[in-house]
Order: sequence, then structure tokens, then C-alpha cells
Amino acid sequence: MYLLTPVLVAVVCILIVWMFRNADGSLEKRKELARSSAEARPWVDEDLTDGTDLQRAEEDADEWQEPEESVEHIPYSHTRYPEKDMVKRSREFYELLNMRRSVRFISNEQVPKDVIDNVIRAAGLSLLVGSLAVLSTVGAETLKAETIGQLFSEISFTPSRTNWVKEYLDTAPVLILIFKQVHGFAANGKKKVHYYNEISVSISCGILLAALQNAGLVTVTTTPLNCGPRLRVLLGRPSNEKLLMLLPVGYPSKEATVPDLKRKPLEQIMVTV
Amino acid sequence: MYLLTPVLVAVVCILIVWMFRNADGSLEKRKELARSSAEARPWVDEDLTDGTDLQRAEEDADEWQEPEESVEHIPYSHTRYPEKDMVKRSREFYELLNMRRSVRFISNEQVPKDVIDNVIRAAGLSLLVGSLAVLSTVGAETLKAETIGQLFSEISFTPSRTNWVKEYLDTAPVLILIFKQVHGFAANGKKKVHYYNEISVSISCGILLAALQNAGLVTVTTTPLNCGPRLRVLLGRPSNEKLLMLLPVGYPSKEATVPDLKRKPLEQIMVTV
Repeated sequence: MYLLTPVLVAVVCILIVWMFRNADGSLEKRKELARSSAEARPWVDEDLTDGTDLQRAEEDADEWQEPEESVEHIPYSHTRYPEKDMVKRSREFYELLNMRRSVRFISNEQVPKDVIDNVIRAAGLSLLVGSLAVLSTVGAETLKAETIGQLFSEISFTPSRTNWVKEYLDTAPVLILIFKQVHGFAANGKKKVHYYNEISVSISCGILLAALQNAGLVTVTTTPLNCGPRLRVLLGRPSNEKLLMLLPVGYPSKEATVPDLKRKPLEQIMVTV
Repeated sequence: MYLLTPVLVAVVCILIVWMFRNADGSLEKRKELARSSAEARPWVDEDLTDGTDLQRAEEDADEWQEPEESVEHIPYSHTRYPEKDMVKRSREFYELLNMRRSVRFISNEQVPKDVIDNVIRAAGLSLLVGSLAVLSTVGAETLKAETIGQLFSEISFTPSRTNWVKEYLDTAPVLILIFKQVHGFAANGKKKVHYYNEISVSISCGILLAALQNAGLVTVTTTPLNCGPRLRVLLGRPSNEKLLMLLPVGYPSKEATVPDLKRKPLEQIMVTV
């Protein structure tokens, strides 16, 4: 018993030290996290968190428009239309987009390559943190029909609609894949998280949809499942990119139908004060 | 010393039990987290997670295009242009958007109300899970100048640029606020999480940017901070909506400058196979 006492004292001491170090460690970690998240994103409120927040431990934060901030400013040259023209142009643009529908029945007819190039160029203008991949059977580029056709036959979409959703993958002459770039790299080689990558890439997708409609082509926005990494690797995109959307593009097939959708009345989506 | 030994044994026992309970607790929590996230969204892969995942505990899952799925189909009427026109239209649309810049220097000159209405209508067409609020000094609607002016004077934006970023809030004749609808309500009154609400709303924002450019107006996409809930309440939007973006809209001021931005070359953002 005389011997046990110092041993027990030692054990107690070790346990207490261990506990404090742990408590300290987690406190330190919490403090560090709070500090790094406060430092890195002092200005972002709860509303703006997205999936990339999981990677907040990274050292650097940037803003999605940052590339614009660090460069020299030049005078802005503006095209101003007469008021009558502004009203006419805005009405015509609304009418054009009012005809747009998500079309899931796409003909296998080829589409002009120049049109696809221009559409991609237009959408690409606002694509700061992502990339667009075009899989096409246009011209001699028949990879889609072979490799991709095989790959897509294995892809699962939303389970309940697997059968008819997949049809356009076989028929559409062009598939546009939109990748978001989850992070970039700082000058020192460290990862730089792109906090707004999903918003930014989706904005480009909106412009893509408008550009397709303007050119007289149809599409439907889909979010392919379980195939992102495989498609990324197949297309040789880097690991900091993730597949966000897939759009089959072409002319509508002759028997194409669309849901008899009623538009939401303006007052339901718009508040004016 | 004889007395100390049992006391120390008791202390050691208590400490050991306390440590194990703690270790157990965090393990349980981690297990629980993993289980709930695996159960709630069995079909969505890692690539598609976004901020709404935090609310995964909700019962129902939907897809952002679901409203289209449950309604009757009708034949699709398509406007097809001759190939030459398609190329021309797509090139002109690219050229229009190639002139678009994020402009932070906005004149206080009034803009035609009809133009704003048409722009909002165009963007609203694709707005399934969100809303647009227009704060405007156009016409007799001077709420912005009074209430909103006061509110915005309290808003904090990115600290490093507070001074010059806020200027457009005072000068822009129109502010467009874009809310995402994080969840809706099922027939049984339960919450229905809109998993793709941020993507969907951002797509609308892309169309909004194109519509503004088409009309000859300028803007800059901003993500306002710490003011979302207050603006939401002020505008009478329901609690299932969250402020995602704020766009000051108007003509550029005479001395407006823009960053001397070099566009990414097409081959950097586009892969063709």
C-alpha cells in the first residue's frame, strides 16, 4: 500500500495533465477555427454558407470576383440605347425567354458547330471558377458516340425517372458538362477555396440557357448523379473541379412535349418598394 | 498515507469513467451524424451538396425542376431559325455579352420603369424557388431613399472595400435583391427542402445579368453581409427565403472605370471531345 500511493499519485497527475492538454487542445483548435474563419470570412453571414464551407480550414479565402479587384482600372465604355429602344429590347428579350422550355425530347440531328462555339463563348465570359466540356458528335468528333455512350449507359439519374430521362443522352448531338472549380491555388501553392464557385458557375449556366434559346436550340438542366468523378477523369479535368450540371443540347424531336407549365404570376416572385 | 490511497483510487476511477464517457459521446454523435446524412439523401452524390444540407433532417426530398414533372404534357412549339441566322444570332449574343462588365460606379439617373419590369419578368421565368425584390426610386416609390438608405448605412460589406463599395447603394436608382427559397411546404404542411435552390436562383441571376446588358444597363453582383434577415423582414418576405445577392442597377456614372480584365482564353474553360 505504501508503494501504491506514489504510483497512484503519478497516475492521477498523468491523467490530469492529459485531460488538460486535450481540453486545451480542443480549446486551442476551436479558438483557431474561430480565428481562421473570422479572419478568412469576416464579412460572410450565415445566409451565404454553401458546401464549400466544409473546407474552411484552408488558409486563404477569396471572393469570386477577386480576379477583377487586383488589376488596374480603365475607363468603362458604355453603349446607351435611346429609351424607346431600351424598352423594346427588354420586351423582346423577355418574349424570347418566355418561349424557353425545358425540353427532354431531343432529335439526333446535327447542330452547327459555330453556334455551339458561340454559345460556349458567351457562357464562358462569366465563368471564373469552373469549366465547360462539350461532348459532341458534330463533325469528326465521335468520341461521344463510342466512349461516352458506354459510360452514360451506366449512369444513374434520379431513380424514379431513369428510363425516360436517359433517352436524350443517346440522341442529343451535343452534351454540355459544367464543372465548378471548388478551389484554386495561391501563388505559394496552397489551396484557395472559391467560396462562391457554385453561385458563379450557375450564373454562367443561366447565360448558357439564354444563349441556347437565342440560337433556337433546346436543352434541359440536369444534375447527373454518381458519375461526376468518372466523367471528370475521362475528360481530363483536374481534381479541383466537380461536375455540377449536364445539359443535352440539340433541336427538339418532332414529337417533343413539355409540361403544361403555368408561369408564376409576377407579383408572386417580385416585390417592389 | 493509508487514507490517501483509496481517495486516489476513487479519483482515478472517476477520471477514467469521465474520459470514456466523453470519448463515447463524441463517437455516438459522429455516428449519428453519418447515419442521418446517409439516410436523408441516398441518391445525391458528394458533388451536389450545398448549404441546404444542414437541414437534411427534413422528411421530403424534391428536385428543383419537380414542378414541371407533375403536370400534363403538351406538344412543344419550336421556333427554328435558318442555320445562317443561328450562327449570326449566337455571334451577336456573344458580342453583346462580351461587352458586359461589372460596373461599381452607377449614376443616380432614373431608369425607365418598363425596362426594369421586363428585365425582372425575364429573370423571373426561371425562378422556381426564390423571389426578386426591386427597391427603386423610380416614379413615386421613394421608400429606398428613406427607409432603405438608413438601413444600408448600417450594412457591413467586405471590410477592406467598405468605402467605395457602398457608394452605389446610395446612387443606384434601382436595387435588385435576390432571395433563395430554402424550403417550401408539402401538401401535408411539412417542410420540403429545395435542394437545388441556390443553383436555381443563381441561374435566374445569370439571365438577369444578360437581360440588363441587353437593355443597356449596368450592375455588379454582390453578396451583402449581415443584413439578409433584416432586409427580408423589411420586405415582408417569408422566413423560408434567404437573401442571396444584391444588384445595384442603373446607367454607369460618367467617370465609371472597370478593372482591365483579360478574358480567359476559350481553351482554358472549354474541353471538346
